[in-house]
Amino acid sequence: MSNFTAPLTGLISAPFTAFHNDGSLNLQAVEKQVASLVANGVSGAFVCGTTGEGISMTVEERMRVAERWQQVAEGKLQVVVHVGHTSLGDARALAAHTQKIGAQGTSTLAPYFFKPGNAEDLAMFCAEVASAAPALPFYYYQIPSMTGVNIPAADFLRAAAPRIPNLAGVKFTFENLMDFSECVRLEGGRYNIVFGRDEILVAGLSLGARGAIGSTYNFIAPIFHEIIAAFEKGDLALARERQAAANAIIQIFIRYGGPPAGKVMMKMIGVDCGPVRLPLRELSPKREEQMRAELEAAGFFQMCSRG
Amino acid sequence: MSNFTAPLTGLISAPFTAFHNDGSLNLQAVEKQVASLVANGVSGAFVCGTTGEGISMTVEERMRVAERWQQVAEGKLQVVVHVGHTSLGDARALAAHTQKIGAQGTSTLAPYFFKPGNAEDLAMFCAEVASAAPALPFYYYQIPSMTGVNIPAADFLRAAAPRIPNLAGVKFTFENLMDFSECVRLEGGRYNIVFGRDEILVAGLSLGARGAIGSTYNFIAPIFHEIIAAFEKGDLALARERQAAANAIIQIFIRYGGPPAGKVMMKMIGVDCGPVRLPLRELSPKREEQMRAELEAAGFFQMCSRG
Amino acid sequence: MSNFTAPLTGLISAPFTAFHNDGSLNLQAVEKQVASLVANGVSGAFVCGTTGEGISMTVEERMRVAERWQQVAEGKLQVVVHVGHTSLGDARALAAHTQKIGAQGTSTLAPYFFKPGNAEDLAMFCAEVASAAPALPFYYYQIPSMTGVNIPAADFLRAAAPRIPNLAGVKFTFENLMDFSECVRLEGGRYNIVFGRDEILVAGLSLGARGAIGSTYNFIAPIFHEIIAAFEKGDLALARERQAAANAIIQIFIRYGGPPAGKVMMKMIGVDCGPVRLPLRELSPKREEQMRAELEAAGFFQMCSRG
Amino acid sequence: MSNFTAPLTGLISAPFTAFHNDGSLNLQAVEKQVASLVANGVSGAFVCGTTGEGISMTVEERMRVAERWQQVAEGKLQVVVHVGHTSLGDARALAAHTQKIGAQGTSTLAPYFFKPGNAEDLAMFCAEVASAAPALPFYYYQIPSMTGVNIPAADFLRAAAPRIPNLAGVKFTFENLMDFSECVRLEGGRYNIVFGRDEILVAGLSLGARGAIGSTYNFIAPIFHEIIAAFEKGDLALARERQAAANAIIQIFIRYGGPPAGKVMMKMIGVDCGPVRLPLRELSPKREEQMRAELEAAGFFQMCSRG
Repeated sequence: MSNFTAPLTGLISAPFTAFHNDGSLNLQAVEKQVASLVANGVSGAFVCGTTGEGISMTVEERMRVAERWQQVAEGKLQVVVHVGHTSLGDARALAAHTQKIGAQGTSTLAPYFFKPGNAEDLAMFCAEVASAAPALPFYYYQIPSMTGVNIPAADFLRAAAPRIPNLAGVKFTFENLMDFSECVRLEGGRYNIVFGRDEILVAGLSLGARGAIGSTYNFIAPIFHEIIAAFEKGDLALARERQAAANAIIQIFIRYGGPPAGKVMMKMIGVDCGPVRLPLRELSPKREEQMRAELEAAGFFQMCSRG
Repeated sequence: MSNFTAPLTGLISAPFTAFHNDGSLNLQAVEKQVASLVANGVSGAFVCGTTGEGISMTVEERMRVAERWQQVAEGKLQVVVHVGHTSLGDARALAAHTQKIGAQGTSTLAPYFFKPGNAEDLAMFCAEVASAAPALPFYYYQIPSMTGVNIPAADFLRAAAPRIPNLAGVKFTFENLMDFSECVRLEGGRYNIVFGRDEILVAGLSLGARGAIGSTYNFIAPIFHEIIAAFEKGDLALARERQAAANAIIQIFIRYGGPPAGKVMMKMIGVDCGPVRLPLRELSPKREEQMRAELEAAGFFQMCSRG
Repeated sequence: MSNFTAPLTGLISAPFTAFHNDGSLNLQAVEKQVASLVANGVSGAFVCGTTGEGISMTVEERMRVAERWQQVAEGKLQVVVHVGHTSLGDARALAAHTQKIGAQGTSTLAPYFFKPGNAEDLAMFCAEVASAAPALPFYYYQIPSMTGVNIPAADFLRAAAPRIPNLAGVKFTFENLMDFSECVRLEGGRYNIVFGRDEILVAGLSLGARGAIGSTYNFIAPIFHEIIAAFEKGDLALARERQAAANAIIQIFIRYGGPPAGKVMMKMIGVDCGPVRLPLRELSPKREEQMRAELEAAGFFQMCSRG
Repeated sequence: MSNFTAPLTGLISAPFTAFHNDGSLNLQAVEKQVASLVANGVSGAFVCGTTGEGISMTVEERMRVAERWQQVAEGKLQVVVHVGHTSLGDARALAAHTQKIGAQGTSTLAPYFFKPGNAEDLAMFCAEVASAAPALPFYYYQIPSMTGVNIPAADFLRAAAPRIPNLAGVKFTFENLMDFSECVRLEGGRYNIVFGRDEILVAGLSLGARGAIGSTYNFIAPIFHEIIAAFEKGDLALARERQAAANAIIQIFIRYGGPPAGKVMMKMIGVDCGPVRLPLRELSPKREEQMRAELEAAGFFQMCSRG
């Protein structure tokens, strides 16, 4: 393993960023978020990512959120900060700040306005980001559904290896599992390829994943621990059965719009993270009621995390 | 299980259709194809599908090919015939013929010119096809990369259940493994959901697949038997290692264009299936030589099927 | 101009294919269709294309429809037959038949299951089709929204020129008007590039279109004659005003699903073409009533063709 | 017309942002840029848009660039500043700054990470941006090829009208000319819909465009003036001929990668804007030489703007 590989194993949360009702940061909420994650066996936090609406915040806000998470989670959770930005200058500033505050890693997605056309160009951009936090492991965040950049992560790793000395791995949020498998095995398994599809964690484990980052680990971590335990005992039938139970919740989460629904679910487990920011939209009270009924029927309140 | 579930378990080949150099059907080749599949432990054939260029043949040609496969393979391989067509009349004629010749099942992909907008419309189309071969199990063929129709297969099954009495399952050739998992578990596991992504068979098995249809089972079936055996013994590390070896071949197959490359590989294992039809294009001799070198380096000739 | 350029100028209809309620061909309806087109100043018919559901018919049905149109329209309308098929053998049979019955041209869209990867491959496929009707002008039918093949038509023309002696032009149904302009001007304006976007005919005329093929010319040809007349007088303000009136109808046509809505509109002008075929779906009586009300409000019954 | 309609008529440049070789801002270059635009009859500048790599700069850099343009161009060019950002807070700060420096308008594209699902949500986001510069006309910037947001601009205008008192129009950079036409005519032609497709300006004019924003007006404005003059005299044949000459250049610009090629072309006309920023990549010296040869053959140096 690389010297720079951060121990992103087990379940890692992609936490929501808590806002007050006026849209401003609610940094007080982080304590409750961290306590809930620790109580539910989560081992890390991928801060200011997609779920955390990092891209909807100013650079200064992102720094304050990262700082707060690092303060509160120190010694309890691994903290990796997503620093991706279409402005390379901003991404570098965020990366440098991440190192300064003592967090455990940086990560960036592909630039998503002007899009790199090949793995070389993507690696060049990421190298500039990673070099601004040279003492920290760097993760490339593969998420084509949001960025529109669908360069195989294995190609990225090959192009990045000579350019990024602190290259640690990939947060892999995509359906191309052949690519995932190849990344896992590349150079003798040197890289930490963290699985980002909660709804098929069983498949990820079977292909060699040792860690997983996801948004639903914020509110239904217990059931994913059951999946992992069943898998490790070799009881795939049970693992699949628990995955199906989790997926009943995930499908509701997706159907109600993802992050906005997730924030409602956080409230339901007693960890109020407030509203989302535009262009995301709040659920109406009526939709919220419908969702609660569906969650109840799917067993959410039996299997959810405790706040 | 439904009365109509065909036993599509184990490895099922999607055979190439053999053509003479002038483009006409080479029905003589089927004997060698069947012998090779049987010798390599393949249990079925999905005839005139994507790999078989069914869509590039006339209705009469498709009937002759199906007939020949059924004759030669009878008692040796399960034969399911792909009857999909943008013309419902043609699809129905092909389905009726499939039943008449005594094959074991029919299948159709979604219409791919005018595209059904929802699961109901897709089910109505498929019901018309399935009812033309009412004594045979019917499989819906999910392959959005070719059809552009990306309706979740689980939604299709729910819409089709009341409309298609002989509904048996799905040939599932897509990356959406949450949908695959849901199909596998639907109505207590009633349906036969056949996995169609050779390159991530390990993931498919972990999610409950009991059968797999693919084009590479024509030429590298032995290594997939090793994958299945390792998986069944609970040795996932070995299963992944063998999958990686298979994937080195599959990536060459993909890089050289899929079906045209596959026909060259058939020649290499001693089962000449001739050229492809337009709009597919033959590999140039030079490209063929390059591919052979890459295959050699990847161990193809050690792990390939025997003709 | 090429010796082979068919005179596809003015408004050319893409006629609906009439079916009986049981789905069988209604060849009797052609007389009324032709009479209505002639009465409304339409100069040609592009038979068995997208609007005509050619792709949803058997080869034999397509031949019977083409034959009927040629018989009835002879001396009254230019008849070009769409012979496109994913099976090259079928496409060639349809092309040969088109020449035999004395129609005025053939056309094919790009193969849309296996998709040609470049202009050369597309030209090779089309050359095989065109050569089956060597005495007739051949039109390539560019319609990426249906075929998924988005090769610039100008690239096609350059690749096809040395391969297709009877190459006449392109039925251009796409938004890439830079490509359209280039096609119009290619080799000194040698090719007949027929405009296929009824809703922006004014733009097409401004870029040099001299003919237009479309589905809405079946039921609102008169207003398009007004557009052309205004354009030819140099009164662009009036041309735009009439285009806007037409577009109010076209937006209803699109909103209610295209071909199925169009067949209802044909009934409304007194030229009953019956139902559509699966996978297209009929409008429900309620939706039909809603559409009628919207059409009335948009002035359809003042501007429509007469049956 | 709305009180808030800015006079974005005639040719408006989307200027490049000049950088030094180390990637830092080169604000000195603005004088030469403005002088060249004025000398070539350009009437406005859309600053920090796509061509200007606004999205690749920090907020502070964007403010400095906007300020400089407004200082230098005051009284000579209309200056509209693109303030779009995935962070609403940043977009509002940029809008407020635009008003403070006395520029003539603000504009934002659709948020392009989290994407608004409908016209209402898009209008809500834009309303927050527009209200931060309430004294300035606001333009929505429609550019689906970059944002992935393909909501018809006419739907946006209808949803935005009651929410954005200073709504002035749309910078329309898309192929959907039916939508463009509808926007032009909406509410009696109340909005200023500025055409954004240089390569089909003739079509835009025929559909009623009175202004056009584009990147190629930075270096080949003279030929577009000829197009407009020909169009206004009613000589469409000449307009098309000049458009074709311009398009020969535009196709080279596209083939060589857009903005990076454009910056090389600026150097060729004597207005050095330096390199592009990552993830865009410089042309290699060899590619630059090839491009120069192609430009020469296409007549670039006869028709280009003068620095």
